[in-house]
Amino acid sequence: MKPENVVLQPLDAVVVPEPDLMCIFGTGDLGRSLGLRLLQSGYRVVYGSRRPHSCGALPSGAQVMTHAAAARSASLIFICVHREHYEFLETLQSKLEGKVLVDLSNNLKKGLYPEANAAYLQRLVPQAAVVKGLNTLSAWALQNGLLAGKQVYLCGDDAGAKRVVAEMATKLGLTVLDKGSLSAARELEDFPLRLFPEWRLPLCVAVGLSAFFFFYLLIRDVIYAYVENDKETSYRIMVSLANKVFPIVSLVMLSLCYLPGAIAGFLQLYRGTKYSRFPNWLDRWMLCRKQMGLVALGFAFLHAIYTFVIPIRYAVRHKLISTVVDEMKNNKTTPFYFDNTEAWGTDSFYALGILGFFLYVLLALTSLPSVGGSLSWREFSFIQSKLGHLTLFICTAHGYIYGWNKFLRTSTYKWYTPPGYMLCLIMPSVALVLKLLLLLPCVDRTLTRIRQGWERSKPKDAIGVTNL
Amino acid sequence: MKPENVVLQPLDAVVVPEPDLMCIFGTGDLGRSLGLRLLQSGYRVVYGSRRPHSCGALPSGAQVMTHAAAARSASLIFICVHREHYEFLETLQSKLEGKVLVDLSNNLKKGLYPEANAAYLQRLVPQAAVVKGLNTLSAWALQNGLLAGKQVYLCGDDAGAKRVVAEMATKLGLTVLDKGSLSAARELEDFPLRLFPEWRLPLCVAVGLSAFFFFYLLIRDVIYAYVENDKETSYRIMVSLANKVFPIVSLVMLSLCYLPGAIAGFLQLYRGTKYSRFPNWLDRWMLCRKQMGLVALGFAFLHAIYTFVIPIRYAVRHKLISTVVDEMKNNKTTPFYFDNTEAWGTDSFYALGILGFFLYVLLALTSLPSVGGSLSWREFSFIQSKLGHLTLFICTAHGYIYGWNKFLRTSTYKWYTPPGYMLCLIMPSVALVLKLLLLLPCVDRTLTRIRQGWERSKPKDAIGVTNL
Amino acid sequence: MKPENVVLQPLDAVVVPEPDLMCIFGTGDLGRSLGLRLLQSGYRVVYGSRRPHSCGALPSGAQVMTHAAAARSASLIFICVHREHYEFLETLQSKLEGKVLVDLSNNLKKGLYPEANAAYLQRLVPQAAVVKGLNTLSAWALQNGLLAGKQVYLCGDDAGAKRVVAEMATKLGLTVLDKGSLSAARELEDFPLRLFPEWRLPLCVAVGLSAFFFFYLLIRDVIYAYVENDKETSYRIMVSLANKVFPIVSLVMLSLCYLPGAIAGFLQLYRGTKYSRFPNWLDRWMLCRKQMGLVALGFAFLHAIYTFVIPIRYAVRHKLISTVVDEMKNNKTTPFYFDNTEAWGTDSFYALGILGFFLYVLLALTSLPSVGGSLSWREFSFIQSKLGHLTLFICTAHGYIYGWNKFLRTSTYKWYTPPGYMLCLIMPSVALVLKLLLLLPCVDRTLTRIRQGWERSKPKDAIGVTNL
Repeated sequence: MKPENVVLQPLDAVVVPEPDLMCIFGTGDLGRSLGLRLLQSGYRVVYGSRRPHSCGALPSGAQVMTHAAAARSASLIFICVHREHYEFLETLQSKLEGKVLVDLSNNLKKGLYPEANAAYLQRLVPQAAVVKGLNTLSAWALQNGLLAGKQVYLCGDDAGAKRVVAEMATKLGLTVLDKGSLSAARELEDFPLRLFPEWRLPLCVAVGLSAFFFFYLLIRDVIYAYVENDKETSYRIMVSLANKVFPIVSLVMLSLCYLPGAIAGFLQLYRGTKYSRFPNWLDRWMLCRKQMGLVALGFAFLHAIYTFVIPIRYAVRHKLISTVVDEMKNNKTTPFYFDNTEAWGTDSFYALGILGFFLYVLLALTSLPSVGGSLSWREFSFIQSKLGHLTLFICTAHGYIYGWNKFLRTSTYKWYTPPGYMLCLIMPSVALVLKLLLLLPCVDRTLTRIRQGWERSKPKDAIGVTNL
Repeated sequence: MKPENVVLQPLDAVVVPEPDLMCIFGTGDLGRSLGLRLLQSGYRVVYGSRRPHSCGALPSGAQVMTHAAAARSASLIFICVHREHYEFLETLQSKLEGKVLVDLSNNLKKGLYPEANAAYLQRLVPQAAVVKGLNTLSAWALQNGLLAGKQVYLCGDDAGAKRVVAEMATKLGLTVLDKGSLSAARELEDFPLRLFPEWRLPLCVAVGLSAFFFFYLLIRDVIYAYVENDKETSYRIMVSLANKVFPIVSLVMLSLCYLPGAIAGFLQLYRGTKYSRFPNWLDRWMLCRKQMGLVALGFAFLHAIYTFVIPIRYAVRHKLISTVVDEMKNNKTTPFYFDNTEAWGTDSFYALGILGFFLYVLLALTSLPSVGGSLSWREFSFIQSKLGHLTLFICTAHGYIYGWNKFLRTSTYKWYTPPGYMLCLIMPSVALVLKLLLLLPCVDRTLTRIRQGWERSKPKDAIGVTNL
Repeated sequence: MKPENVVLQPLDAVVVPEPDLMCIFGTGDLGRSLGLRLLQSGYRVVYGSRRPHSCGALPSGAQVMTHAAAARSASLIFICVHREHYEFLETLQSKLEGKVLVDLSNNLKKGLYPEANAAYLQRLVPQAAVVKGLNTLSAWALQNGLLAGKQVYLCGDDAGAKRVVAEMATKLGLTVLDKGSLSAARELEDFPLRLFPEWRLPLCVAVGLSAFFFFYLLIRDVIYAYVENDKETSYRIMVSLANKVFPIVSLVMLSLCYLPGAIAGFLQLYRGTKYSRFPNWLDRWMLCRKQMGLVALGFAFLHAIYTFVIPIRYAVRHKLISTVVDEMKNNKTTPFYFDNTEAWGTDSFYALGILGFFLYVLLALTSLPSVGGSLSWREFSFIQSKLGHLTLFICTAHGYIYGWNKFLRTSTYKWYTPPGYMLCLIMPSVALVLKLLLLLPCVDRTLTRIRQGWERSKPKDAIGVTNL
């Protein structure tokens, strides 16, 4: 067996091809970090600068030249310059002919310019192939080698140029997603400016519900007491009232996570196919279920902590002491009687609340990217569907037990309004009933078939359903 | 210096090779998402469909043809069709000769068919090279570009075909793991159907322990009180009893995390080598230590919350009020005496519990994939071993202090049974003592040498131990 | 259209090139796991062993030979042997000529040897090209396929050899970072031995602050009571005192997260440029802000739990009962008067604390690698800057409200010392005031321009600022 000498030649120092040379225009933070990263991935780097002799510390191993000289030496040029200074590139026209220009620029705000930066660059230097991309990388991430497994986007009109950039990005440990022609540049430039777009709807719902229930309970609890009994209980706003609003909003939002799934199921049953699109509002609703659930958990978390501090509140201690003293003075005997049902009721109430919160936290943990990513499809659906509905059920039961002996009392309906916890039980109950209907064997069977691609209206003789 | 013109030619539009063409059979969710992803990674895509003219919206840029035409045009074909409809492929035999077929199918349940889907496919089309793989990817992940850094599995009998698929998967940002010949297809098809296999043992242990201690404490606390003192205390089941069971199970399970490590150490010491395999039960035990610990944390979390709600429970408030009223009526003076030792004892008890819980949470955080992955080997072992044993020690101390003045009281041993917290202290104490023995300098030195590859029975003159 | 037959040939079994052959010296845990992983990635593997016929179970598909024979057959050799046994490689000199040797070894401690392992290896076998790297991978990770997206480091003097290793590593799913010449080997060998280097400063600060405030409060609370009032209150150490120290340290450390940013802003304003380096102490401070914040959260977490257990403490219950009994006996009426301001004050105090803790947790969640990595640049800066300062503001307000009616009372200043919470409010107040100054429109405008690259001293006519 003859040894393979693949690497013998490199040592003779001739055959190994020179690593590719990359050019970077701009010696700012991003330019430097990018250069460092390119050098670490085995490229050679040359900087183009207005003042090649006074541009500060660059990564060791990189050369610095004038823009023109640097442009001439490499075929791929990273433009790490603010858009406002692109004009100087027009003067380099002849040197940039046939080069690939990678536009990494971002803007400070959306809609600052009528044209995407990359489109503007292409217009300035029409003979070059402009590729927009990598602009979601920060100087910080580049410098600290936090690229492994990150996804970046590219777009450009020249397929060959895109492929050259994609290869380079892959070597840096990035995963590339081609977003099409240069007209997508605007979209790419907006990526780093996104501000929680998918959280907007859930947060709006949360704020709306909170405001509604806050004022509703303010009227019932504080204003009612003031008007009818002439009692000043405004101090209740900070903790008591908040601790009523939080669980209510949390429960309603949790039910909003599971309601659209049930609605979608009924819609598919009604239509007899899974191939027609859902109405837009339902689509949008379903896409923000995860965020809905996390906001709901936030409120549940606040509810839990508010509950834990109850016994150390001044008002609660005061009431406790007053009760005892009152007791003694009037020699009443009522509280001495230990009500076993009451003990069972309140303890069950707390136990259900704790269990519900525990499951809530479990659900949230699996929505962490790194945890959810390690689950199999069946595990994920088990947690999100089975465990999720169980959580909803337990939290709803927690609500029902809270009011178990108050539903039929007239004093509950101050000014003829139902208390908050009754209102908040409507949505979860509906969601649970709908889910229960979908779980009926006959309904479930049809729905499963529909979700596997069966269509009610389709002729029976069609061969091979091809959906997977 | 002449400029390198690597990219000049692409602009002349001839030299750039056409990107590879991929064929997808099936226009369901998975087929569409896969096609989109392939297009985004720079491939051309052609769909094969029964009804090329009525198969709904496909990703823009993809072509649709009949199965036969599509198969002819490409060399790699993704089969995104349910197994039940594979028969039609038999009729395409001639067109599929020499093609690579990637089987992405999954089943709804384990063991539905005697044969793996991919093996069935290979039997139907023997002249094609079937590769099973990528079946752990969901349409959702493909569509949303969540592939970066994900691991996928391949298997197949043709090495060349596997290499072609692996290259394609790498370009999509996936990491490929070759699982060998097509006989592994069954295993791959079971991956998406796993349901927490590594959690099964810890959960069984947890349920078993919970049930045992629940009934044990039910007898001691509730039934004993009913039989001996004729007191109805069944309300204690919901919170008091649960809050005794949870910490007990938590502590026992935490000790079960650290016991196997100690046992393994003694086994290695006894055998004088690290190269003989551990018995199966020990291996299995050691592999689920992480899950054991997380279940233990779950119980500790419940214990913590149950403890926080104690003061707002009806029974507790009632008892407090009764005590005071009783006090006043009978003019007793005992409680007015402030017992400093008691104050120290209970406060230490709480402080240790809180500290233990804090360390518990810290341990759990480092077991998050994204956090644990960023730790160095030494950091990880520091946390899991040093911090872990410290947690076990503090939690055990928390248990000992709970019973510090009750061990010698006869009233503790109702019906001659020891209380639950005594039982639960056995395991952690054993684990700690074993660990302590292993830390004795002479024992530790020998064990370290063994773990570095030294063997007691080996002749001294052997050159070079080669373990790393 | 003619079908492309790219894969037709492989099936004819001749054209597919044999996969590369890799050689591994050493059959320990790491050697075996590495071999398994290489086989799974499509390589062939041959082991070199002293005793080829008795070296235990190796991954199926791998061959075993003597060191010499194995070395001859492959061009890339992984050295999975302890440094202590490297000498035997000297005897293989001739067989290793021109080979690439990958040194994966690690040491048990820093500074065990005067020379890096890889440098020593290169000295032993000068004709081979030694590449240091992959030594951060554990046998565990290799065996369980946890490599996807991981970053590894390489260094070596031969660029060609490094490229060969980098290609192999990329095929394994790793991202490679070239750290330069072999002189960096020492640094690479120290990576697995790091023990939370970036946590050291924050932990030192935390321990220092805790110790200082503990003794300060011990004197004010326990010793003062003993000396002046002759009351034994040492039991307060375990919970009361700790629960004063924790929030104080937490708040100070939180302010230490935001102070350096403000200082840096003023420094940039003063210098009129962002291009001069910060002093070293500021640099170091800024680099550990994340860790500072997480330590602060740890203390806040402890503070929260300590607060929740307050009402179940013996001392607190005792005091409550004493108060009532005292009340009754002396027939005082003070506590019966419900102080509305007091109720508002304490409830606001609790509400702010809870809200602050909630925001704290939110901040910490976004610092999880997998969560933070999915945020856009704007989202990240929104959370860390806006939400962070809001948290600091709320927590500081929590502190101010605690002492709202005690600032002007003489009894507050025992032995002429201010209470702990006053001391701890200084730092956060300073940080907030500085931040507020930086937010003044005129200051903010200048600072934004500086951070975009504008320099006060620069001539106006310079073309094109190139920073991005």
